[in-house]
Amino acid sequence: MNAPVHDPLASYRIETEPFYRPAGNEVALYQQAYRHRMPLILKGPTGCGKTRFVEHMAWSLGRPLVTLACNEDMTASDLVGRYLLDANGTAWHDGPLTLAVRHGGICYLDEVVEARQDTTVVIHPLTDARRVLPLDKKGELVHAHPDFQLVVSYNPGYQSSAKDMKPSTRQRFAALEFDYPASTLEAEIVAHEAGVGLDLASKLVAIAHCSRELKHRGLDEGVSTRMLIYAGVLIRDGVTPRESCEMTMTRALTDDPDMASALQGFVEAQFG
Amino acid sequence: MNAPVHDPLASYRIETEPFYRPAGNEVALYQQAYRHRMPLILKGPTGCGKTRFVEHMAWSLGRPLVTLACNEDMTASDLVGRYLLDANGTAWHDGPLTLAVRHGGICYLDEVVEARQDTTVVIHPLTDARRVLPLDKKGELVHAHPDFQLVVSYNPGYQSSAKDMKPSTRQRFAALEFDYPASTLEAEIVAHEAGVGLDLASKLVAIAHCSRELKHRGLDEGVSTRMLIYAGVLIRDGVTPRESCEMTMTRALTDDPDMASALQGFVEAQFG
Amino acid sequence: MNAPVHDPLASYRIETEPFYRPAGNEVALYQQAYRHRMPLILKGPTGCGKTRFVEHMAWSLGRPLVTLACNEDMTASDLVGRYLLDANGTAWHDGPLTLAVRHGGICYLDEVVEARQDTTVVIHPLTDARRVLPLDKKGELVHAHPDFQLVVSYNPGYQSSAKDMKPSTRQRFAALEFDYPASTLEAEIVAHEAGVGLDLASKLVAIAHCSRELKHRGLDEGVSTRMLIYAGVLIRDGVTPRESCEMTMTRALTDDPDMASALQGFVEAQFG
Amino acid sequence: MNAPVHDPLASYRIETEPFYRPAGNEVALYQQAYRHRMPLILKGPTGCGKTRFVEHMAWSLGRPLVTLACNEDMTASDLVGRYLLDANGTAWHDGPLTLAVRHGGICYLDEVVEARQDTTVVIHPLTDARRVLPLDKKGELVHAHPDFQLVVSYNPGYQSSAKDMKPSTRQRFAALEFDYPASTLEAEIVAHEAGVGLDLASKLVAIAHCSRELKHRGLDEGVSTRMLIYAGVLIRDGVTPRESCEMTMTRALTDDPDMASALQGFVEAQFG
Amino acid sequence: MNAPVHDPLASYRIETEPFYRPAGNEVALYQQAYRHRMPLILKGPTGCGKTRFVEHMAWSLGRPLVTLACNEDMTASDLVGRYLLDANGTAWHDGPLTLAVRHGGICYLDEVVEARQDTTVVIHPLTDARRVLPLDKKGELVHAHPDFQLVVSYNPGYQSSAKDMKPSTRQRFAALEFDYPASTLEAEIVAHEAGVGLDLASKLVAIAHCSRELKHRGLDEGVSTRMLIYAGVLIRDGVTPRESCEMTMTRALTDDPDMASALQGFVEAQFG
Amino acid sequence: MNAPVHDPLASYRIETEPFYRPAGNEVALYQQAYRHRMPLILKGPTGCGKTRFVEHMAWSLGRPLVTLACNEDMTASDLVGRYLLDANGTAWHDGPLTLAVRHGGICYLDEVVEARQDTTVVIHPLTDARRVLPLDKKGELVHAHPDFQLVVSYNPGYQSSAKDMKPSTRQRFAALEFDYPASTLEAEIVAHEAGVGLDLASKLVAIAHCSRELKHRGLDEGVSTRMLIYAGVLIRDGVTPRESCEMTMTRALTDDPDMASALQGFVEAQFG
Repeated sequence: MNAPVHDPLASYRIETEPFYRPAGNEVALYQQAYRHRMPLILKGPTGCGKTRFVEHMAWSLGRPLVTLACNEDMTASDLVGRYLLDANGTAWHDGPLTLAVRHGGICYLDEVVEARQDTTVVIHPLTDARRVLPLDKKGELVHAHPDFQLVVSYNPGYQSSAKDMKPSTRQRFAALEFDYPASTLEAEIVAHEAGVGLDLASKLVAIAHCSRELKHRGLDEGVSTRMLIYAGVLIRDGVTPRESCEMTMTRALTDDPDMASALQGFVEAQFG
Repeated sequence: MNAPVHDPLASYRIETEPFYRPAGNEVALYQQAYRHRMPLILKGPTGCGKTRFVEHMAWSLGRPLVTLACNEDMTASDLVGRYLLDANGTAWHDGPLTLAVRHGGICYLDEVVEARQDTTVVIHPLTDARRVLPLDKKGELVHAHPDFQLVVSYNPGYQSSAKDMKPSTRQRFAALEFDYPASTLEAEIVAHEAGVGLDLASKLVAIAHCSRELKHRGLDEGVSTRMLIYAGVLIRDGVTPRESCEMTMTRALTDDPDMASALQGFVEAQFG
Repeated sequence: MNAPVHDPLASYRIETEPFYRPAGNEVALYQQAYRHRMPLILKGPTGCGKTRFVEHMAWSLGRPLVTLACNEDMTASDLVGRYLLDANGTAWHDGPLTLAVRHGGICYLDEVVEARQDTTVVIHPLTDARRVLPLDKKGELVHAHPDFQLVVSYNPGYQSSAKDMKPSTRQRFAALEFDYPASTLEAEIVAHEAGVGLDLASKLVAIAHCSRELKHRGLDEGVSTRMLIYAGVLIRDGVTPRESCEMTMTRALTDDPDMASALQGFVEAQFG
Repeated sequence: MNAPVHDPLASYRIETEPFYRPAGNEVALYQQAYRHRMPLILKGPTGCGKTRFVEHMAWSLGRPLVTLACNEDMTASDLVGRYLLDANGTAWHDGPLTLAVRHGGICYLDEVVEARQDTTVVIHPLTDARRVLPLDKKGELVHAHPDFQLVVSYNPGYQSSAKDMKPSTRQRFAALEFDYPASTLEAEIVAHEAGVGLDLASKLVAIAHCSRELKHRGLDEGVSTRMLIYAGVLIRDGVTPRESCEMTMTRALTDDPDMASALQGFVEAQFG
Repeated sequence: MNAPVHDPLASYRIETEPFYRPAGNEVALYQQAYRHRMPLILKGPTGCGKTRFVEHMAWSLGRPLVTLACNEDMTASDLVGRYLLDANGTAWHDGPLTLAVRHGGICYLDEVVEARQDTTVVIHPLTDARRVLPLDKKGELVHAHPDFQLVVSYNPGYQSSAKDMKPSTRQRFAALEFDYPASTLEAEIVAHEAGVGLDLASKLVAIAHCSRELKHRGLDEGVSTRMLIYAGVLIRDGVTPRESCEMTMTRALTDDPDMASALQGFVEAQFG
Repeated sequence: MNAPVHDPLASYRIETEPFYRPAGNEVALYQQAYRHRMPLILKGPTGCGKTRFVEHMAWSLGRPLVTLACNEDMTASDLVGRYLLDANGTAWHDGPLTLAVRHGGICYLDEVVEARQDTTVVIHPLTDARRVLPLDKKGELVHAHPDFQLVVSYNPGYQSSAKDMKPSTRQRFAALEFDYPASTLEAEIVAHEAGVGLDLASKLVAIAHCSRELKHRGLDEGVSTRMLIYAGVLIRDGVTPRESCEMTMTRALTDDPDMASALQGFVEAQFG
């Protein structure tokens, strides 16, 4: 039931290099922050590459990456661990955060603003000079492994103020800001990942740019790079561009008929 | 207590071909999406055939189908699994989603917008390049079987915005849109499933069309294809059309006397 | 702790014929619906005889009847079953719904609108062509016994719209509508059940009719047939009609002094 | 851990006659209702003697009395019973209601409107012709002992409409209404129970009558008979009437200075 | 895990006389109430000496005192007891209230209005003629030890009406009202407890009196006797009066700068 | 599973002197308060050094420090302890507060206003003359070790009144107020902790002062001393001052573009 003794984080190691194209000096800044094990916030819209970035950094630093998608039903115990019953009574099982703290992984809390307070407060003593994780239920104070780092992310665009991070939590982090990649870079990424030509990829990126203008004017989010790759894959396989874009962008993004026809209009403009 | 070792998904296999009449090229588009194991949203009104469609696709692809009706009391553990106590202490039991992920089924989350956040967030790492399912409580990272695909459905017509999918979830899916079948096709389906003539079936379809005009004007939903089949079955057995339609459509759809007499008026127009 | 092996539904069989006087052709319609195992909604006011009707039908069809009074604290596990700890660890115990599904009973969910969503969603796959009950926690898919039927009831008169059935649930059922029996029939029932003469019974029914006019004008419900039987029983035993009616109708129906004296006025009119 | 085998309700038997002075023909009406095991509602203000009445009736009928004070945190399991773990696994333990149903006690649910729905719905099948109690979690249907009767009480004066009994529950009961005893009778009761003279008791009753006029004009309830007995006891022991009444009535009933001085005014009028 | 057999309340006995200066005849009135085991409410502002008074009475009557600080998360089980698992299965463990009821202690529920309904309803049968505590989960009816008494307290000054005691609960108690002691007496108490002269104590009491005038005009509560003792202790140890009062009164009572400077003004007036 | 017998608080001892520069006479006042084991409130903005101060005091007094970050999901059991199952049944495990109470530590409840009522009420009997901790679930009354002291903190700046401390809790504490250190002192701290020159440190402090002026005008909190240290560390490592400040202050403090450019303006003013 437990992970092997020699490397409890083995399944969290990233074996092959995740594809990542830097947009600026974010790689160097992350490396500096990691040198000091500075806790980091990654901010940016959905699907712009934050998760891919932290995977790439973990791979390049040779550190295991423990990723946790935060949500409002996640409890502190889901992070920290709990007692479970076995044949000899109850035994403690480290949660994913504790595994990373104890054995020196990078712990990545994705969409941290979705988590409840007890989840975010649990990380406070890990993010100041103490670098400890109190396992209150077990009565143990875990001192962080020298390689441990905490990284969190959120999308400043659509969470309500009720779900903002508490000031006392924010002040414990340095922050990097992300956005969708620039047009040329994004087209290169789409071409590479979908296996299509740059010309087709550029048309798809043009549609995405139009859709992102509609953000806050009827769309919660514009078309993401991931959606462009989906569209490219279908077109490569012989589905018409119109059907491909309808299936991977228009229908996926909105249920509103007016918005849908606006989005299909952008498609027509490129492929009509 | 466990499923047999050799095929843990045996009871989820569909032995006989589910009756399905395509309305457009949705079968081809689904096949393309499955080739890339692209996560799919099926959108459309209640009773228009989304569930039947995914059953038909699972049958034609030879894949087991694990269907879960989402609801607000369903927890992530209901999907993912939990520890249960046996004679030797606690042992892990895979939930239905984990079974599908591990052994290569199609997992279909019906009415996904009814689920709580922890249910939808749990599927995020399954719907990007990673295709993994973290079993946080067990400390295991399950890599998806190559045949695994995730399909979800919802009805954009009547769920409130409070129950909309999060943008960060939507962007992980391609989407197909469904509607009630066209009149001729719907009559064929009713005739086939209820064992009645096309003439009677067409009258029933005509009633359904009138009722669907009342949607959002006093009815939450119009008469579904399933209701028409119920009515047809009773008429075939000798119940009068009036009583059959009252029992399977009017009384079932509404408690409002005015609505009920409007609906019975449509019945009179066909059978009076 | 378990029911006997040979007939797990033995205690749910109805040995003696429940007294029921049909008001129309509801018996024939129910029989048709049962032939096709069509899921049924029984609608009508409190105490008008819905429960008695389904008992009578179960008796006449020779089927065991598993009745469940729905309420907002009932969980899906209360219907479906759960793991319980015994000397060898945990063992699965079928819930009442599962017993009916597996062994071919009629399952009657009384006041279904009081139940929470997870209770109503659990019945979806039982009410379409699949006729299966997924035991998610056990990882089993129970195929319904050929004799199984699902019947639900509710009172459309006083539940709020917040407690209405979801359209996607309603569309899975045919529906029968009930009301209090006509005067002559109701008097016969009261005379039979309370052991009093038709003359006295008719006076009591007259009071009930007056009270039912006050529904939605200060009373949530009028006097039910059951209350009339109580009153008849006390009068037969020598309690004065005035005291009997006050005890079984007036005091039981309302705490409001004006309503109470209006009701006693109806009593005076018959017995004064 | 269990009650003795021969009489599981032994500790619920009432050995000595509870002091009760009838105010009208409520004793005869209760006896008639018990003859038919008719479910009963006792309505009336706090402290007017409902509990004492049902104790007296249980004593005079020679039946054990299982009293349960209802509250919003009480679950159906608290009434019905639950599985408890012992050395051989889990074993079922009957709850107080089940004990009364199985072995023929009178079960008295005090302040039933405070209970949650699942508590009140659980009593439905006990209060119609079936007289059964389904133990859903145990899969047992308990047929009520011939001596079993259900009695509930509430105070119609101050519960909100949100806490009213559901019409479908009310209609299952006959009802008796109680009020504070008439002046002479109440003085006799106070004199008997506090061991004071009728003269002093009458003065205390006069204070109570004044206070009850203030109900709904600043007081939730007037002075109860129980409070008068407390005051009488202290006066008998040598505490001044003024201090006794202040301690047992004024300070106990209200925190409002104006109300308190109004109440003390009534005391002055009798003892000043 | 259990208390010793011979005196289960040993740790609740008060060995040394708690310092208490009566303000009126409250000691005599309590003694009368205890003679009849009359349930008692102690009302009064925070820190005025209610807890000290009941400790003093328990000591002078030679009775153990079981004190419970009520709060909205306390359950009836926290009072009454619960089953706990040991090597032979589950065994019942009496809660603090049950210990006092069974073995004859005084049970003091501090700030009873903070408790949930199930906590207050559980005490009803202990506070009328029955003097019993039903352990519903255990199926036992505990008859109170002859020495058992129930005492509750609350502060009528700042709890909302939503947290008022239910009339049906209040009527079961006699009540004593407390306030801060008169100036001379309070100065004596401060001098005695802080080990300072009467002159200094009187100055501190003067500050408290000014602060109590601000109650409901910006302060929730004025300076309590306990705060004056803290201030006296610090001054005796050489901290300046200004710093002592700022630390023990001003900073502790308010976060509002205007209120704080008003309070410091009172300090200046005495020590400036 | 338990801490060693000889020093259960060993892991809570502070081995090396925490760096702390006093701003006034807070060290002397704390020492006086500790002499009398007076409960203490530390008030002040996020990141101003309250936690560091109490660490320093615990170190200088040679006492172990048990720190608990309060949150709304923390239960009284998380503080006090609970029964856990082992091979012999359930055994009690002291919580962190109980460990400090029993063995003489300083218990520090950080951000106490975030805790629920049951957490704060549990500390009442520890903060008056009794100095006891009732373990209600265990039936034990723990008398505090002579060295035990309770310290709590909160930030009066941004918690809502709904999260204010109850007056009956506040009155049990003396209070010390903290603010950001004066400019010269803060520059010394930044220089010492980040390993940079005083000149650079002073520039960073100047930026912080400007940002703190924006508090309540768009920022929840200004730049903290901790953030300045982060910035200093990055600049020392060769990152440009502009990028360093953007990463550790601007991006971390706000998501608002206007606020962000105001903050970057302060950076330009110092380093531009």
